[in-house]
Amino acid sequence: MLNIAVLGYGTVGSGIVEVLNTNQDSINKRAGKEINIKYVLDLREFKGDPIEDKIVHDYSIIANDPEVKIVVEVMGGVHPAYEFVKEALEKGKSVCTSNKELVAKHGAELLRISKEKNVNFLFEASVGGGIPIIRPLNQSLTADEIEEISGILNGTTNYILSKMTIEGSDYETVLKEAQVLGYAERNPAADVEGHDACRKIAILTSLAYGMQVDFEDIYTEGITNITDIDINYAKSIGANIKMLGTSKKKDGKVYAMVAPMLINDLNPLYTVNNVFNAIFVKGNVLGNVMFYGSGAGKLPTASAVVSDIVDAAKHGNTHIMTIWSSRKLELGDVNESKYRYFVRVPSEVKIEDVNKLFGDVEIIKLDQYSNEYGFITSEIMEREYKEKSSNLSIKNMIRVAF
Amino acid sequence: MLNIAVLGYGTVGSGIVEVLNTNQDSINKRAGKEINIKYVLDLREFKGDPIEDKIVHDYSIIANDPEVKIVVEVMGGVHPAYEFVKEALEKGKSVCTSNKELVAKHGAELLRISKEKNVNFLFEASVGGGIPIIRPLNQSLTADEIEEISGILNGTTNYILSKMTIEGSDYETVLKEAQVLGYAERNPAADVEGHDACRKIAILTSLAYGMQVDFEDIYTEGITNITDIDINYAKSIGANIKMLGTSKKKDGKVYAMVAPMLINDLNPLYTVNNVFNAIFVKGNVLGNVMFYGSGAGKLPTASAVVSDIVDAAKHGNTHIMTIWSSRKLELGDVNESKYRYFVRVPSEVKIEDVNKLFGDVEIIKLDQYSNEYGFITSEIMEREYKEKSSNLSIKNMIRVAF
Repeated sequence: MLNIAVLGYGTVGSGIVEVLNTNQDSINKRAGKEINIKYVLDLREFKGDPIEDKIVHDYSIIANDPEVKIVVEVMGGVHPAYEFVKEALEKGKSVCTSNKELVAKHGAELLRISKEKNVNFLFEASVGGGIPIIRPLNQSLTADEIEEISGILNGTTNYILSKMTIEGSDYETVLKEAQVLGYAERNPAADVEGHDACRKIAILTSLAYGMQVDFEDIYTEGITNITDIDINYAKSIGANIKMLGTSKKKDGKVYAMVAPMLINDLNPLYTVNNVFNAIFVKGNVLGNVMFYGSGAGKLPTASAVVSDIVDAAKHGNTHIMTIWSSRKLELGDVNESKYRYFVRVPSEVKIEDVNKLFGDVEIIKLDQYSNEYGFITSEIMEREYKEKSSNLSIKNMIRVAF
Repeated sequence: MLNIAVLGYGTVGSGIVEVLNTNQDSINKRAGKEINIKYVLDLREFKGDPIEDKIVHDYSIIANDPEVKIVVEVMGGVHPAYEFVKEALEKGKSVCTSNKELVAKHGAELLRISKEKNVNFLFEASVGGGIPIIRPLNQSLTADEIEEISGILNGTTNYILSKMTIEGSDYETVLKEAQVLGYAERNPAADVEGHDACRKIAILTSLAYGMQVDFEDIYTEGITNITDIDINYAKSIGANIKMLGTSKKKDGKVYAMVAPMLINDLNPLYTVNNVFNAIFVKGNVLGNVMFYGSGAGKLPTASAVVSDIVDAAKHGNTHIMTIWSSRKLELGDVNESKYRYFVRVPSEVKIEDVNKLFGDVEIIKLDQYSNEYGFITSEIMEREYKEKSSNLSIKNMIRVAF
């Protein structure tokens, strides 16, 4: 029997209990031993719940119980999750977590400690919910140099953009609908401003290149400026607007960004709609692969955490994750990254002025918007775009990823 | 230094040498040791090739060299691959293979031997080329009961069906084009008759349910009966025709099949075109995930084999694969599997006769085919479909997967 403790009995925590109960036999068989939840840490009591008698309020009971071999942290937030996880690892317990804030901020240190203690720090559920991506990056794509990771990493924003595209509704209407359905939080900032996706692409990039990527260094733009007008322009050229977390290696430098981008139907992310997530990876010999699935949700996320518990149980005293060094990966200057830019300007802006600044551009005029037009530049550096566009009155700009 | 031997210096074998050379530093770092190709087994000589002095013609040199820790089998075919691999495992060497015939036929036995000898028998490249699917099934989807695996598992047939759909060409024309481009063999039977996909879904099903699935037991239908007329009917109802290898668990029984099927745009496989492969997996708690990428090709396949070499190198004396038992999984009777059926009949067939047999059906009439029409039945057992349709003159039937 292998004893585990679950920190936090919220959505994911109760999902883990449900998954362990539902698939008990096959999970125990795969883990090679019976997995037993000995404690659940939560401030609340849960009277009448089957786990009622496992509830403890004091973490030191868990930390100091040598019978607990695996600590499952699903509380979220950096504190006190960081202190709890660090203590568990230092006491020789493996840790499985779904906490992207924790992994993005302290992943390098926690991986190092887990390696020193010959235990495991696993975080499959921290990116892409139920989609297997951390383990494939760590164990499957080992023959390759990763050239690009681009992902639809946030279900809330993908739901909003999909609905705006499919139904033609505006941003505010769809956001409210998403809040009613529980797909968006009452305070949606972490999702719609791109902060959630930013932490996830930071984790993936750290893992791909083996060095610490500080999420604060990643240029991040949310979807709050995207209007139904932008969506209609996108549709007119057969494109979709998706919020991508992306990192690309070019001339030895890694350029990372979170922003809404135009993609066309040659991109496998094009048809990833609603709350689904997908992560596209390009390897130098493998070519393109994509991983698709439910990026959030109680049971898919719990399934990913439990797959980590199985792995930790199977590898009692073998460290299985590649560590990433705490040496900081200096990202390429965002001003030197190159894109094509889709730009909307009022009709007063003369096309000849646009041409003077950007050379030949692709002009897009839609009948229903008579007082404006759009254009797409050739590929130029972000710095050049900023300088040139500062001379124009701009309604909106969206980067083009094709 | 870790010595390996490569059996077969064809497309994949030379790809492996190329991948190991191209990404030498990062591969050695991830493997934790320098990987050195000591021998390449081939009947030919390869004068002037950098591996010229590693070529041997006699397998016993490799089998009897205790310095060789990993044997990489990329010869294809069951014999003598089976004898070579078995001998290697029995002598305590790990084996990595891309050989789907070998794995489908002898996987259970070879996994058992590898476990007894505490070495590894790895076969990521045997299904889906460069797409990580074997390792995710084995190590990531461990919290779930697998309810369905459906895949576009053969690039040649997917290329042919995609071209027929996109360009409106007929089967023979596209097949010839595919042969010229090297996407189809001169003798295309293994691909277009579904035999290749059949071995792959047998491997995936064996792994998912932990028991031997004999590929001979899987009902297999190729794409040679699919015409441009069928494609036009499919388009008219917003569907695509894809050759799927599929296994589904229902009431405790697993039903497996390879056949062309109609899928709609709610299926993530809908947009998987050209030579790309994708595997859709449904878990009872995870929901739907999909793995997408290059299903064949020299470097993608070699990348998958090399990821196995890295794993085997990291796990010198630890068996990491779940074994599947050699106990045979009795598949559900194909006559008891249930589908909706799209059927084309000549106009002479009276709709009232169709209704008498199948009840209410969805009728599809296309202007350009005045001497026939199509209909879609409700969901019925295969046996019932066969009995009822034997009373009708049928032009073609395709199962509907929505």
